[in-house]
Amino acid sequence: MKKTNPHRPGWRRTTPIEGSYRSIFKWGAPDGFKHPNDKLYSFLKEALRMTDADFDQPGSQGDEPVKLPPQAPVGISDRHLAHFIALVGDENVNADDFSRLKYSSGKTTEEALALRRHHAVNIADAVVHPRHAEDVIEIVGYCDQHRIPVTTYGGGSSVTLGLSPVKGGVILVTQTHMNRVLDFSEKNQTITVECGMMGPAYESLLNNAPDHFDTGRRYTGGHFPQSFEYSTIGGWIMARGSGQQSSYYGDACDLVLSLNVVTPAGTIKTKNFPSAATGPAIHDFFKGSEGTYGVLVNATLRIFRHMPKHRKRFCFIFPGWTDAITAVRDISQGEFGMPSMLRISDAEETAIGLKQFGIDGTLADMFITARGYKPGIRCIGIGHTEGEKKFSKCVYRNIRKICRGHGAMSLTGYPVRKWEQSRFSDPYIREDLNDFNLIIDTLETSVTWDNLIPVYDRVRGYIKSRPLTICMTHCSHFYPQGTNLYFIFIGRFESSRSYIDFQRGIISAIADSGGALSHHHGIGKMAAPWMDAYLGPEQMAALRCLKKHFDPNGIMNPGGTLGLDPEIH
Amino acid sequence: MKKTNPHRPGWRRTTPIEGSYRSIFKWGAPDGFKHPNDKLYSFLKEALRMTDADFDQPGSQGDEPVKLPPQAPVGISDRHLAHFIALVGDENVNADDFSRLKYSSGKTTEEALALRRHHAVNIADAVVHPRHAEDVIEIVGYCDQHRIPVTTYGGGSSVTLGLSPVKGGVILVTQTHMNRVLDFSEKNQTITVECGMMGPAYESLLNNAPDHFDTGRRYTGGHFPQSFEYSTIGGWIMARGSGQQSSYYGDACDLVLSLNVVTPAGTIKTKNFPSAATGPAIHDFFKGSEGTYGVLVNATLRIFRHMPKHRKRFCFIFPGWTDAITAVRDISQGEFGMPSMLRISDAEETAIGLKQFGIDGTLADMFITARGYKPGIRCIGIGHTEGEKKFSKCVYRNIRKICRGHGAMSLTGYPVRKWEQSRFSDPYIREDLNDFNLIIDTLETSVTWDNLIPVYDRVRGYIKSRPLTICMTHCSHFYPQGTNLYFIFIGRFESSRSYIDFQRGIISAIADSGGALSHHHGIGKMAAPWMDAYLGPEQMAALRCLKKHFDPNGIMNPGGTLGLDPEIH
Repeated sequence: MKKTNPHRPGWRRTTPIEGSYRSIFKWGAPDGFKHPNDKLYSFLKEALRMTDADFDQPGSQGDEPVKLPPQAPVGISDRHLAHFIALVGDENVNADDFSRLKYSSGKTTEEALALRRHHAVNIADAVVHPRHAEDVIEIVGYCDQHRIPVTTYGGGSSVTLGLSPVKGGVILVTQTHMNRVLDFSEKNQTITVECGMMGPAYESLLNNAPDHFDTGRRYTGGHFPQSFEYSTIGGWIMARGSGQQSSYYGDACDLVLSLNVVTPAGTIKTKNFPSAATGPAIHDFFKGSEGTYGVLVNATLRIFRHMPKHRKRFCFIFPGWTDAITAVRDISQGEFGMPSMLRISDAEETAIGLKQFGIDGTLADMFITARGYKPGIRCIGIGHTEGEKKFSKCVYRNIRKICRGHGAMSLTGYPVRKWEQSRFSDPYIREDLNDFNLIIDTLETSVTWDNLIPVYDRVRGYIKSRPLTICMTHCSHFYPQGTNLYFIFIGRFESSRSYIDFQRGIISAIADSGGALSHHHGIGKMAAPWMDAYLGPEQMAALRCLKKHFDPNGIMNPGGTLGLDPEIH
Repeated sequence: MKKTNPHRPGWRRTTPIEGSYRSIFKWGAPDGFKHPNDKLYSFLKEALRMTDADFDQPGSQGDEPVKLPPQAPVGISDRHLAHFIALVGDENVNADDFSRLKYSSGKTTEEALALRRHHAVNIADAVVHPRHAEDVIEIVGYCDQHRIPVTTYGGGSSVTLGLSPVKGGVILVTQTHMNRVLDFSEKNQTITVECGMMGPAYESLLNNAPDHFDTGRRYTGGHFPQSFEYSTIGGWIMARGSGQQSSYYGDACDLVLSLNVVTPAGTIKTKNFPSAATGPAIHDFFKGSEGTYGVLVNATLRIFRHMPKHRKRFCFIFPGWTDAITAVRDISQGEFGMPSMLRISDAEETAIGLKQFGIDGTLADMFITARGYKPGIRCIGIGHTEGEKKFSKCVYRNIRKICRGHGAMSLTGYPVRKWEQSRFSDPYIREDLNDFNLIIDTLETSVTWDNLIPVYDRVRGYIKSRPLTICMTHCSHFYPQGTNLYFIFIGRFESSRSYIDFQRGIISAIADSGGALSHHHGIGKMAAPWMDAYLGPEQMAALRCLKKHFDPNGIMNPGGTLGLDPEIH
């Protein structure tokens, strides 16, 4: 029997045209792509009842040059622009349409969908690239005096409408110049970096510390969000991010030793102690403030010894979801150290994962199935350990013992290596799907162990109640007290509006079921409308009290971020 | 040669008389004592150039019944007292001299010295024992309305003038009734307890969880400050405490999942998530607020599996102080998990420690000396590991390897067992010394590794510049980025004033050398005068902004705590 080549859609393989809308909304590197493989493509067609014909012609791809509508004029006067130019130089101020739109846009799905339709809302009046903290102090002071809104652009990878300058004003782009190392101490295992340093540059510096800092050892920053390649240190901290290895290294908040934040009320430079009992820790006031209190200009972070050779990879298949959950809880509470990476997928994500890992339909798959791990019920768990050699091995052995104790079978480390290859590239798949009018989006929440299943059932139930909608769920950040739940959905929507309504329904389902409004994406302007009910009036008043203190004129990322100034939303 | 019985001073072996000053200032259990052993007594005489005659007659022992001077009248009206009685019952309100003084006093050395002299300052007008959170809400609301100061008494073990109700008012004693478990979740490994639960009751509940909560496992709270037996959970959190095992379990702040705080501006009950990206974490605003924002009524804390059988004890003798420091830094940065307890002593503390452990002058001592560990230079390090069996062993083996790599020799686990026997009893020695006009006191600071020696040299230099003054120093809480430095001094002072001046000079030396004003004792009213210079005006303004918000009328622990209201100090 001759095997015919399968049909493959014309996935876009060309870089966006410079200056186009696509060059703004496309994820990541202009020449970076991740196309669905044949198995995933088949699955999508089957699950969403689509045919090859649906993938014949892509929809709007946003290749047109950016041109802002006349109703988006420069809202700050020439005098202000001239001031910024005089301060930072002509080359560091942009007021052209493309720059204004680019730096006003994050990577929220609804932003991408709008840009595809040339729909541009919430655009800054000018873009300024400060050269250093002193520039930021000058700019914030001037803008405060003249009531010009200031929004900070780090990596631009927000998926919560974290940018979206509702009131226009100035965007400060920190990644252009403010990406230097200010201090490094091997003795203290700390590094002080400017806020605009991007993840890969940071990690590369630390991995190659012997070359850069004349150290005896290599180091790692330990922070690897999926947006790693297009995220900044400032963004990690100010949006309370987590990374794929945060179960071991800690969330972004935990990495901070001290912060230096420029606010309209002055500059806050906190102390550099590993711990102190000198009143409430003021750096904590800023973690998660999402630019509403001030601009983080630099931070001193904890770094870690880098020993990648000690990594032990594992992959287990569990009989079912509750087995997997019980196992990872046991791991997280086991008092033997944490794995550096750990992820368990529910049955639907497992089925798709096995396709992506190239296991589905193979002899291995048949073997697994024959051993009683039933498709549609079985769940996969992957991870790896790190640290000192014997420690890493000890953690691995404990995990293996626990997983086996919960009925799991080892699938070797192969799937983890596959996962590692694509750990930062999965977001690229969005453009391919969007090109053919499919929407993929993600929402996440934090839960204690006893609330995991109720939140999972409620949120997944809501998503699956929509016909022809894929819902993949996993847990990927672990604490002795709970975990995060991460939902990925894929579907066809008749309009952006119907997608947004559905997506907001997921946030409501999370809130109603008692999950956190976010585990690591942040709140931005997207989840902000839920904040009052979520935190309650007393806690919102405390956040607003600090807002009023640090930013009395309401110029810092105004327009609803965190729900602090909803009246002007 | 016949050995004569050595002279022994008449160390006090009788419990304080009920209602006496001594019953207030004496540390811990009324019938608890720790007398200097013969070797330590000899050492004290030698080091301080004293003779047996100096220990013939004790000074004032504070055995007289408490009687407040007429200039300390009840400052709140009978109407207010009647209100409190109507609210909580007659049995839960005290306005007698003894109760007022007892619950207005912490364990700061200068408080003890003053009480010995019947000198009573800063006394509350009334003592109220709230029965539950609702009582606290009522009382705080009433006091806010009537501008009556409110100070919270937890375990009463503050050594920073944390109580000391400068403006009088009401003391809320939480340990009397508010010591219940409100919730327990084995699945989440959390417990919700009222603020007034004492350390031993808490730990006993958790160790015996199978009996109390029908759990499958035993648990530990992991928090063991030296004041353990006379400290409360509320105090641990609100003063940012640390314990002897915090290097492994985390500082008090790290144990908190959520807090419930009653403030004049309303009740703050934070969310119970292990981590969340929903704006600044509001529970962090209260950690270390030392009662100036509100009353912590209950908290949900992380608990840990209790596996004492896995404990591995170790003790090493290092050639010198820098060897010991380098070793513990290497341990803290080693990425193999942390020991549960670890402490290195400088040469002076080592010399005294070897006397206390009964090693000094023995054959073992001669052997150690012969091996090149010279008295006066050598330094001792002790500790133990915990957790899962293989993990604990792995940590131990790494520590052993590192210590040996820094020239240390193992002294077996014996000194650790000795230390464990007296881990909470050392403070009892203060009364014996004070009885004979010797003063012992402690101050601590937090340092990064690169600042350890400069701070040590400066502070120790200051202490040793005073003639005939013993100074023992150790590090006992470890982080990859640094440690705490703990100074103990003993000397004879001609007056309380001269002692206080000298002690304040130590705080100045710490501040001037760049150490933190406190690592885990807190600030209270003692270090408060240094806060403005320490944090700077911008950070103090942020703390005062929250003070104004939560406590607009300045009734919560007023009179200078944390330096938030210095104008009324």
